[in-house]
Amino acid sequence: MSTASAEQLRRFIAGVYGRVGVPADQAAAVADLMTQADLIGSDGHGVFRLPQYVRRIRAGGMNPRATPHLVQDHPAAALVDGDNGLGHLATSLAARPAIEKARTQGVAWCGVRNGNHAGPANLYARMVQEAGMIGLYLAVGSANHMPPWGGLELLLSTNPIAVAVPAEDEPPIVLDMATTVAAYGKVKVKAQRGETMPEGWMIDRTGAPLTDPKRSAEGLLLPIGGYKGYGLSLIFGLLAGTLNGAAMGRDVVDFNADDTSVTNTGQAILAINIEAFGDAAGFRRNVDRLSREIRESERLPGVERIWLPGEQSRLTRLKRETDGVPIPQALRATLDRLADEVGAPRLA
Amino acid sequence: MSTASAEQLRRFIAGVYGRVGVPADQAAAVADLMTQADLIGSDGHGVFRLPQYVRRIRAGGMNPRATPHLVQDHPAAALVDGDNGLGHLATSLAARPAIEKARTQGVAWCGVRNGNHAGPANLYARMVQEAGMIGLYLAVGSANHMPPWGGLELLLSTNPIAVAVPAEDEPPIVLDMATTVAAYGKVKVKAQRGETMPEGWMIDRTGAPLTDPKRSAEGLLLPIGGYKGYGLSLIFGLLAGTLNGAAMGRDVVDFNADDTSVTNTGQAILAINIEAFGDAAGFRRNVDRLSREIRESERLPGVERIWLPGEQSRLTRLKRETDGVPIPQALRATLDRLADEVGAPRLA
Repeated sequence: MSTASAEQLRRFIAGVYGRVGVPADQAAAVADLMTQADLIGSDGHGVFRLPQYVRRIRAGGMNPRATPHLVQDHPAAALVDGDNGLGHLATSLAARPAIEKARTQGVAWCGVRNGNHAGPANLYARMVQEAGMIGLYLAVGSANHMPPWGGLELLLSTNPIAVAVPAEDEPPIVLDMATTVAAYGKVKVKAQRGETMPEGWMIDRTGAPLTDPKRSAEGLLLPIGGYKGYGLSLIFGLLAGTLNGAAMGRDVVDFNADDTSVTNTGQAILAINIEAFGDAAGFRRNVDRLSREIRESERLPGVERIWLPGEQSRLTRLKRETDGVPIPQALRATLDRLADEVGAPRLA
Repeated sequence: MSTASAEQLRRFIAGVYGRVGVPADQAAAVADLMTQADLIGSDGHGVFRLPQYVRRIRAGGMNPRATPHLVQDHPAAALVDGDNGLGHLATSLAARPAIEKARTQGVAWCGVRNGNHAGPANLYARMVQEAGMIGLYLAVGSANHMPPWGGLELLLSTNPIAVAVPAEDEPPIVLDMATTVAAYGKVKVKAQRGETMPEGWMIDRTGAPLTDPKRSAEGLLLPIGGYKGYGLSLIFGLLAGTLNGAAMGRDVVDFNADDTSVTNTGQAILAINIEAFGDAAGFRRNVDRLSREIRESERLPGVERIWLPGEQSRLTRLKRETDGVPIPQALRATLDRLADEVGAPRLA
């Protein structure tokens, strides 16, 4: 399998966006975030998504010249309208007032409406964490694949949460998880590889376990912890979607199947200024201590290592920053075709 | 089984607290919250806990004359020190600045340290919801029964989350869940009834499923969704515990086994002012619509009803407000003994 460096990916993605009408500064910003997704191993959220985003722009479903802007502005709360542009733009913009307001107010929350799919949740929680605060991010997923608990209708999505917590010498703790047992992207990967899914990922319409990923269109994703994950998905959707006037429930557009309808995707970012609660350095040292307690604690037979949330994607990032991002042959062919179509340079 | 009315429970609980040195106004406030727990069917969090709380007060582990107070106060953030009093006092106090600050700032967060076990999480999320806002509550559980994912050491608790979302004509949506598959109280109930636990609740120290609840002391609670629930428990513990300078990880005191050590329990409350994001009545109508969409959606074979989070405990409350709270014979005997011991009137 060939690889691409972060710099090659950034240049390639920005080049393609430039050819479909996205202004250069926005193209560069989104290219950087998509490349970060590839670096941390979120392979379903990086350059892999570029053909779909471009298809949506060209079909008129997404605005290439969007100007996301604040539509609500309070001392500790704000709301961004994404102007139906690339989702990364609105969510990045939302992180800024959240951080700035939390600096003076202690805590701040910024919602997004009229956004789009914005890649891996942890990117935005980490923006807050990189400013020295605790960052939390919620999103309404971009396609409904989960019914309410006991139901058959696909009214809910994988609605993810990400939380990033700064540490002192240890890596930050970064949780990033869907509220379903498996994200839909993982089902697709199983299908591509000809593997079966473990029981517990999906059920069919009679309630029986569905393990053949090729039949996933007939299937329903299951929430983590049964009714608990259903409750979390619903609540995260209310906070990231409904509260912001964004799509939730039946209004959610399946952006995999429909390139033209405005998705009105919603997200939310919370910034918590650690200093508002006490000594920030003391907090970070306590996070270090807890991280070590957990990592060094006694393991179940056969378990080689206890991981903290975010450690594995951090190791992937360190490796890929050196070795490059693996680009499977099929993906490279797709990207070459895309580049040729829009008249942009191919991925080097 | 005999029953007790809410009024009888309130009077009884307040009477007992009065005899162990709790000031009358605080005794009444905590009695009311514990009675609310019984009304909504949180039987493990209501009058059932009174003997344990009293034992802890008399053993010197909890301060009966506590004065919880703000130790940090910022425009959108605050921190309450619970003065090691009854947990309900500090968490109720924390809801107030969260609500007041959110009124003017849009969103506000208030943490608690030096608190104690405070009953069901939803009580405090609902305080915020009753003020017309979205309430979120996190807590560090009062005993560690869960290892990190892949581990054997009990470094984590059931760290619950509750979120309460106002609706217009529909009941509010109220999620209240532990991050473990089963709360430890449910294991105890299974043991009392001589029932076995389903696989997935606990494992033994070899990693094999543990289904005999009488062996629960050798067992480990499992998180919802495997590593995901582990991550949630860790993050909620960091936010409700570590951030506030409260116990987390190895510092958590097992308050079932130890009546004398200060627990330094931590909690956190977030209030979100819906008006900061748009029209509050419009939001509540959208919550109504979503609730109905979900409730009326197509069901799996054999499923009689799709529930919204909080609906079942609401029905229990309506029933118990009329019929009274069931008091099992063994519990009544324990409560009679407690009343006699402290010289308070028995539960009528």
